[in-house]
Amino acid sequence: MTTKDIGEKLVALCNQGKNLDAISTLYDPNIVSVEAMGPPGMPLEAKGIDAVRGKNEWWIANHEVHSGKSEGPFVNGDQFAVLGNYDVTAKDGPQKGQRFQMKEVGVYTVANDKIVREVFLY
Amino acid sequence: MTTKDIGEKLVALCNQGKNLDAISTLYDPNIVSVEAMGPPGMPLEAKGIDAVRGKNEWWIANHEVHSGKSEGPFVNGDQFAVLGNYDVTAKDGPQKGQRFQMKEVGVYTVANDKIVREVFLY
Repeated sequence: MTTKDIGEKLVALCNQGKNLDAISTLYDPNIVSVEAMGPPGMPLEAKGIDAVRGKNEWWIANHEVHSGKSEGPFVNGDQFAVLGNYDVTAKDGPQKGQRFQMKEVGVYTVANDKIVREVFLY
Repeated sequence: MTTKDIGEKLVALCNQGKNLDAISTLYDPNIVSVEAMGPPGMPLEAKGIDAVRGKNEWWIANHEVHSGKSEGPFVNGDQFAVLGNYDVTAKDGPQKGQRFQMKEVGVYTVANDKIVREVFLY
């Protein structure tokens, strides 16, 4: 598969709300996921597919998603970017009950037909 | 300056059509600029501020820009991304006379308050 093929599969699955299926089918066991910000004391890097799946499950459990749209992929070599637009309400934590809109860019690196690294910029 | 500061300056200058000013003021002399595609035989990487300025001058000279908008920055650590939307007509080359819309993601890396690397994904 090309980088573009993998990016298109990721975007399609995310737009169907199947983010966890995307992790199971497209992510490398040793995926590294890098956030820009996080709660104090929480590492910004998650390493390994179980940690990344857990991060996604936490996000899904703690946000009511009013709408979510992924756009892309935008490709260069072994990397692709996806633009994400979310309209959510936090169910828990310091933003509990607040509705907010997020726009982020995810930059994904592919090796051997699997996503090995994702970096979120916002 | 923070990564975000530099990203905001870049976005502001690009939205004023001052792309060459952005290069002069924000780019490192040893900037590396990476395209996803290019004419056959042309390297995808441009190295050094003069090569990058030349690439921009070529683009400006060879495209009529109907509208251009940069959005961002989206930040993570020493990197920021900018979403670019362009509506242009090619003045020369194989697409001469054709009007087309482009959407791209630029990912910029900052070191010592200067942009040292830019990668364009589309």
